[in-house]
Amino acid sequence: MSRTAQEQENLDLVLRMFAEVLNPMDSSAVDRFISPDYIQHNQMAEPGRERLKAFLDTIRKQTPQAVHDVKRAFVDGDHVTVHYHVRRWPGDNGWAVMDLFRLEDGMIAEHWDVMQDVVEGGPNPLGPF
Amino acid sequence: MSRTAQEQENLDLVLRMFAEVLNPMDSSAVDRFISPDYIQHNQMAEPGRERLKAFLDTIRKQTPQAVHDVKRAFVDGDHVTVHYHVRRWPGDNGWAVMDLFRLEDGMIAEHWDVMQDVVEGGPNPLGPF
Repeated sequence: MSRTAQEQENLDLVLRMFAEVLNPMDSSAVDRFISPDYIQHNQMAEPGRERLKAFLDTIRKQTPQAVHDVKRAFVDGDHVTVHYHVRRWPGDNGWAVMDLFRLEDGMIAEHWDVMQDVVEGGPNPLGPF
Repeated sequence: MSRTAQEQENLDLVLRMFAEVLNPMDSSAVDRFISPDYIQHNQMAEPGRERLKAFLDTIRKQTPQAVHDVKRAFVDGDHVTVHYHVRRWPGDNGWAVMDLFRLEDGMIAEHWDVMQDVVEGGPNPLGPF
């Protein structure tokens, strides 16, 4: 493995953010991981860290059983990629998601993502993961 | 930059594949980059390298002006992430795509992707890139 100690720290921080913020949908933990100057590229999100907290509060209320199931994650310098499966409730086909994070000074400073419905019965017998 | 020589080779190979296969939609160049045992996870694709060639022939006929505009790319060991914008014709909003490739023996051996329509007029004034 060719990761530097700093790269491993960056990857670990993002995976801790999944465990402590995204999976529990815990807005109170956001400030420990997300920069005050957070740059959000999700097309459906309003910009900024405070709107992220409001979003987490909303989905926690609407889909309290949601899981963000990380399949694989990678780091290159200050950028981290995470490929995961969102299921909003038990039995939900959910979404395939790739997130890309840029870290700065030990915090998540910028975020891009792409989301797609998981389908059943398509032409590919392999799943999207 | 902490990339090893092998990582840089892996990244370069994927970007050459974009330049020589995906952008020109050239099925005749596939065998130089894609393993015979190619594992395809795109949900809408039929499995295998031969079906990839047929797919390229189809889109080259249907959308000869399509571009695959790479925004950023990263490598971690034998995995490469590419974030790019597909526009099928001039003026197309297109799709935001993240591809993830696993390399083996100097070839692309496995591929996952997530695709999403680029929208206009959403709540986020920043684009998805």
